[in-house]
Amino acid sequence: MEKELFIKMVLDTWNTKLNGLDKLFAELSDEQLKKQIAPGKNTGVYLLGHMIAINNKMVPLLGLGEELNPDLYKTFVDTADMDIVERPSITVLRQEWKKINEELGNKFAQVQPDEWFQKHNSVSEQDFAKEPHRNKLNVIINRTNHLEYHAGQVVLLKI
Amino acid sequence: MEKELFIKMVLDTWNTKLNGLDKLFAELSDEQLKKQIAPGKNTGVYLLGHMIAINNKMVPLLGLGEELNPDLYKTFVDTADMDIVERPSITVLRQEWKKINEELGNKFAQVQPDEWFQKHNSVSEQDFAKEPHRNKLNVIINRTNHLEYHAGQVVLLKI
Repeated sequence: MEKELFIKMVLDTWNTKLNGLDKLFAELSDEQLKKQIAPGKNTGVYLLGHMIAINNKMVPLLGLGEELNPDLYKTFVDTADMDIVERPSITVLRQEWKKINEELGNKFAQVQPDEWFQKHNSVSEQDFAKEPHRNKLNVIINRTNHLEYHAGQVVLLKI
Repeated sequence: MEKELFIKMVLDTWNTKLNGLDKLFAELSDEQLKKQIAPGKNTGVYLLGHMIAINNKMVPLLGLGEELNPDLYKTFVDTADMDIVERPSITVLRQEWKKINEELGNKFAQVQPDEWFQKHNSVSEQDFAKEPHRNKLNVIINRTNHLEYHAGQVVLLKI
């Protein structure tokens, strides 16, 4: 019971914040997304691509399968906004955002309670034995925080 | 054991993010804090005051005592940046930030594991009976996200 309660606390928060950011991206026009969040800083498009890439990467990190689109990570995480040579159109990015979030929703629904407390794929068996908090659910806690960090930036594009 | 593990996951994340924001505020000069995070948006000073006020409010919300400085909530949560008539100096705010975070650290250390799963003070007994996830630990999850939302903004003041 306790375990289920804790999983609910973490996943409810993730879903609420993900839906909030989804609403925010939907409210912003392509023109608004092309703007920088502050002078000399990332554009909204970059942050949209960045969030898709990070959500994509959660699939293998949580041991839930293969990444849908590994190229996005190279473009929107490994490369800085100003250094990107070629990027998908905003229309394509909006589709990718929807696609990965549906994929995550479907995958998460199949994870059994005990599995959330198993190790994620960026920690070794040895380290996990000593640090059992480095489990899959902790990835969700961290990714929710990362999402909010950037949501606080994307919101600056609103008029 | 499980309960202690959840608590560690949540409090470790809170402490990591709080320390990160503390480091960020310390790196920013008073002059940098006086600037707006983006044209027409909140100043760094306002966000510093806002975070202090929110952290202050956590004390009564978690049933850990009285708010240290209730005036800050009126100034930095109930009032918009541009509408504030009188605000504490940056020097005073930096002291208040340190003070409330030490206070929270001391208070949190005294909370027993079971208490984290009790209701916080903004939910009724009746609602809590139906929604046991609205507990004190959930407040920490939410406040960590709120902190990261604004950390993503404060970081824009860095050169």
